[in-house]
Amino acid sequence: MLHFENDYGEGAHPEILRRLAETNLVSQTGYGDDAYSVSAREKIRKAVGHPEADVYFISGGTQTNQLVISSMLRPYEGVVSAVTGHVNAHEAGAIESTGHKVLALPGKDGKLQAETLRAFLEAFYADDAHDHMVFPGMVYISYPTEYGTLYSKAELSALHGICKKYGMPLFVDGARLGYGLMSPGADLTLPELADLCDVFYIGGTKVGALLGEAVVFPKGDAPAHFFTMIKQRGALLAKGRVLGLQFDALFTDDLYFRISGDAVRQAGKLKKMLLEKGYELFLDSPTNQQFVVLPDEKAAELKEKVVYSFWEKPDENHTVVRFATSWATTDEKLEALRALL
Amino acid sequence: MLHFENDYGEGAHPEILRRLAETNLVSQTGYGDDAYSVSAREKIRKAVGHPEADVYFISGGTQTNQLVISSMLRPYEGVVSAVTGHVNAHEAGAIESTGHKVLALPGKDGKLQAETLRAFLEAFYADDAHDHMVFPGMVYISYPTEYGTLYSKAELSALHGICKKYGMPLFVDGARLGYGLMSPGADLTLPELADLCDVFYIGGTKVGALLGEAVVFPKGDAPAHFFTMIKQRGALLAKGRVLGLQFDALFTDDLYFRISGDAVRQAGKLKKMLLEKGYELFLDSPTNQQFVVLPDEKAAELKEKVVYSFWEKPDENHTVVRFATSWATTDEKLEALRALL
Amino acid sequence: MLHFENDYGEGAHPEILRRLAETNLVSQTGYGDDAYSVSAREKIRKAVGHPEADVYFISGGTQTNQLVISSMLRPYEGVVSAVTGHVNAHEAGAIESTGHKVLALPGKDGKLQAETLRAFLEAFYADDAHDHMVFPGMVYISYPTEYGTLYSKAELSALHGICKKYGMPLFVDGARLGYGLMSPGADLTLPELADLCDVFYIGGTKVGALLGEAVVFPKGDAPAHFFTMIKQRGALLAKGRVLGLQFDALFTDDLYFRISGDAVRQAGKLKKMLLEKGYELFLDSPTNQQFVVLPDEKAAELKEKVVYSFWEKPDENHTVVRFATSWATTDEKLEALRALL
Amino acid sequence: MLHFENDYGEGAHPEILRRLAETNLVSQTGYGDDAYSVSAREKIRKAVGHPEADVYFISGGTQTNQLVISSMLRPYEGVVSAVTGHVNAHEAGAIESTGHKVLALPGKDGKLQAETLRAFLEAFYADDAHDHMVFPGMVYISYPTEYGTLYSKAELSALHGICKKYGMPLFVDGARLGYGLMSPGADLTLPELADLCDVFYIGGTKVGALLGEAVVFPKGDAPAHFFTMIKQRGALLAKGRVLGLQFDALFTDDLYFRISGDAVRQAGKLKKMLLEKGYELFLDSPTNQQFVVLPDEKAAELKEKVVYSFWEKPDENHTVVRFATSWATTDEKLEALRALL
Repeated sequence: MLHFENDYGEGAHPEILRRLAETNLVSQTGYGDDAYSVSAREKIRKAVGHPEADVYFISGGTQTNQLVISSMLRPYEGVVSAVTGHVNAHEAGAIESTGHKVLALPGKDGKLQAETLRAFLEAFYADDAHDHMVFPGMVYISYPTEYGTLYSKAELSALHGICKKYGMPLFVDGARLGYGLMSPGADLTLPELADLCDVFYIGGTKVGALLGEAVVFPKGDAPAHFFTMIKQRGALLAKGRVLGLQFDALFTDDLYFRISGDAVRQAGKLKKMLLEKGYELFLDSPTNQQFVVLPDEKAAELKEKVVYSFWEKPDENHTVVRFATSWATTDEKLEALRALL
Repeated sequence: MLHFENDYGEGAHPEILRRLAETNLVSQTGYGDDAYSVSAREKIRKAVGHPEADVYFISGGTQTNQLVISSMLRPYEGVVSAVTGHVNAHEAGAIESTGHKVLALPGKDGKLQAETLRAFLEAFYADDAHDHMVFPGMVYISYPTEYGTLYSKAELSALHGICKKYGMPLFVDGARLGYGLMSPGADLTLPELADLCDVFYIGGTKVGALLGEAVVFPKGDAPAHFFTMIKQRGALLAKGRVLGLQFDALFTDDLYFRISGDAVRQAGKLKKMLLEKGYELFLDSPTNQQFVVLPDEKAAELKEKVVYSFWEKPDENHTVVRFATSWATTDEKLEALRALL
Repeated sequence: MLHFENDYGEGAHPEILRRLAETNLVSQTGYGDDAYSVSAREKIRKAVGHPEADVYFISGGTQTNQLVISSMLRPYEGVVSAVTGHVNAHEAGAIESTGHKVLALPGKDGKLQAETLRAFLEAFYADDAHDHMVFPGMVYISYPTEYGTLYSKAELSALHGICKKYGMPLFVDGARLGYGLMSPGADLTLPELADLCDVFYIGGTKVGALLGEAVVFPKGDAPAHFFTMIKQRGALLAKGRVLGLQFDALFTDDLYFRISGDAVRQAGKLKKMLLEKGYELFLDSPTNQQFVVLPDEKAAELKEKVVYSFWEKPDENHTVVRFATSWATTDEKLEALRALL
Repeated sequence: MLHFENDYGEGAHPEILRRLAETNLVSQTGYGDDAYSVSAREKIRKAVGHPEADVYFISGGTQTNQLVISSMLRPYEGVVSAVTGHVNAHEAGAIESTGHKVLALPGKDGKLQAETLRAFLEAFYADDAHDHMVFPGMVYISYPTEYGTLYSKAELSALHGICKKYGMPLFVDGARLGYGLMSPGADLTLPELADLCDVFYIGGTKVGALLGEAVVFPKGDAPAHFFTMIKQRGALLAKGRVLGLQFDALFTDDLYFRISGDAVRQAGKLKKMLLEKGYELFLDSPTNQQFVVLPDEKAAELKEKVVYSFWEKPDENHTVVRFATSWATTDEKLEALRALL
């Protein structure tokens, strides 16, 4: 079987495994004070262009979203998200389980439009009864989105401007951050992204690590006692070194960006291949996830030899499926797929 | 520096790293349905003597406690624990953050006595106003306890009997389970422990894994949709293989028990060494954690060359410190310590 | 000023005050075990045609919704509601504050359509990833709705049938229940409504009481220890008699239905008056709330002499306002309004 | 039967009922903006000597405690209370249900000693692992306590000083505040109490009202959007006038203090009566609750004719019972009791 169903199907990038083996016997302090975590934080501060940044390592994305959002909201506040946002759709109520509503707004190709946000906020504060309602306390977006699409610098700036005006932090879910930044469709660098939000995370799990996400508060203004809240949410690893070391490896010699760039390039080839074979794209994704509309028979036929993700049924005779690439997507794998398309 | 401060200072047992490397490029399904997790579950079911058991892998201990307890209690219930229980003392309110009170009862050397539990329950139900109070909904104990001590089979049976009488599940936190089962002070096997409780977990993080705990419902009666609650608590790893594979390795050729037995034997040597040198033990632990009372000067002197855990100040001139052993505690390390004592 | 802004602007129906004065010096047990609460429960059981019903008195509607929903859902479940449902829109996140998501579906004139519910449930369970999502655990509707509209017996039966099929309780918010049941537009009796849902409440605050709502579990299957959950949510009054006595009065000699019927009749006159004067209704409400579209100048002019509720701006030149009637809406008041229209 | 079991057995002080009847037909705005609430707030500001105070009316004590505490704590914080504190013992986990731990410290006669608090805080911050623990975020005490005892001005000042030093607000539960302030054992006035804490509430339910508590933030620094949090906790009455009017009545012509003073005087007579009859007091309460040790036969005999509260069994042959007085405790009732003692 050819595996294209996601970007977390294999273990870790070999360089990460090498570093784990190399450091295995060194004794280190627990809970994130180990030398590798210290070093990784320093490298990330440099990469994001904010020497004052606070950086924390968390084991998974849902956990990170839950932790960041619940620690930054007051009890009367909720988080604004596109309807398709991961926190609204696919985290089993992780945000609500901490007592906060997700204020879901319609989006476009997975993106929250500045105009939609502005109109919502104006209507909210214009409503006489708004103090009987959940206050919008922060804004959540993902980069790339759940549909592989990207905010332009102008779009992100517009959202950030509205957030500032209303005193709401802007949080960027970067579960696949690298695939966004290294995309030919991106007009943003990592430091620029850091400037245009209040908190974001650099996804590791889906970009070559065994597990791990790095939360970054660029201005160094993490919520008070964020460490204790990590512990309270069950998100503190005794062997914090496991996360720290992987991010240290990812931010050594640009490994994170090389992994991401390679995967995006392979996705580009895949997209070209799909178009050449006459398939219709569901939407135009410039990142490592490609969504294609297949006739049902073709989808069924492919299923015998390729593992892909079912996305949705756009009509009775077609199926939208997702193909994803990663550091493990070789040219051989792509050619094998081509033969089947 | 000599490291004796805990049992999670190094990476993983080399066999685990070997297996991670060996399987790294194999594509697997995410979220715990991978072949390694499937295999590990099967091996654990055999080891606990319950082919019908439900087994889940979670990344850390606090997370496991939070998840198990919050998914088994009804809103009007709390969890009974010894005052010294990890859930009461050192988890930053993880249980309360899910809406449940920890009903803390006095213990003895870290253990909850059956008599204490029985008296509490009788008084609770005898109180006319008990429906204005938090109902005791389950009982939490740790094996070994936070003080390295062990419940005997008789003690565990007594607790279990009371729990059954009152319809409360008994939950055993086994963050260091192996060190208990392989202790010369233990009169319990793993299947016997499984018979004497309703849910427990097999700690990996502190017994040779990079991270990971295996929750076991021996009777196969995990709460409905436990998977979704794992997701909701942010405890579901995309690369579930990372946990599954480690437990597969730990439960192949008795690795878990060999690691535990070795560490307990080294702790026995350490204890003998301490006694020979004339030091007083704070309490008599038969497991891999040893607590010793040091004169303050000796504690200060040792600190130059040995990393240990500060435990408490029993009086003005003495300090209780903890030494812990693990798979990484070699005879050389012990001899080096002997020279300093 | 003429008051038409809501149905809770005055104190209580005089008969309720009379009963409060009459019984004031009688000593009674606290927390709902008083003789008046006991009697009121019995009368309500008769009125709903379920001698086995469990009945509890709560001080307000949001509190009742929060309590019923949070006590009936499991942690992985949310409550389905129309977007316009009170629990979704105007309770400041009361449901989410207990850890549960409101699964908001589009409605029609404030009503949740059976077809919408069915389609949502089918899509949910057909989704491979549904165990990463919040499970629909119960359905919330209001009768009358927030727009004064009513479900027909057929509509309610359809919703109830779907709920039964999926094992979800159906909860009816009856903050204004009497105005629904006594409406000429209703084809449901109270016992029929009780048969077609799993739990509902009989609103007192908006139907003549000082405060108070009566939660009814028609089949006598209130969640275990519901009393303790009332206490936990801060919803237990020490002087439970205050609620019990009011419901005893309301369910003596059909007072509840007489109050409701009178208000609905006055609303009918008001509606007729509005139509005669050539105003356009925003929607056709058969209950005590009437929604009318006013030219902005007329709305401004009226505002000088009448207190009404602003509802929304349908376009640049018009305003939708709400007029509500209650036991305190006399013919004189209506005639005074007519003069101003 | 003679009723001495509590101070909430009857309805309301007649003056309150009179005012309810008198104002019943006046239309008022909902949700606490009515003229009576506005007036009551002003009178309370004067009575507490803080014209800048924020005042809110809530329907019950547990609800008030839950609301104040949950709105003032951050997620990593808990509330410190004596073990016997109402929030720890008899509120069914209301505080924990909002995600916060009650940090229970041993008390003396129901009081939290300054020395106990200081020692706890010093030990907490001295503990290397304190960031793995729940931070003490505020202090809760009751005045009078659950045992009818009172803090002296010196004791309250000492607690307040410690709270200030550690940046923790001090919250005084005044469910029976009047009975404390009007006690011959009190050396505190209401303005002095307001000066020595950060937030407190003036209990109405147990001091002559049908229901209602007035939360006071003396410095006018209520948490942002406290109104919305009242709504979210289900604690906002549509007919806020019901609470406002009662407090307006209670703070007109010192009614609150007259009710309290009368009850305390009757309790003094009762205490004298008990001592004259040779009964032993369980503890020396200067307020409206009296605790007496009865031989079991006497307790059983009295039970035939007197309703009292069972408190505890101090030994096999005795029972501690509570007698409480209120505005409804007449001299005739006391004399009837005397005949039975």
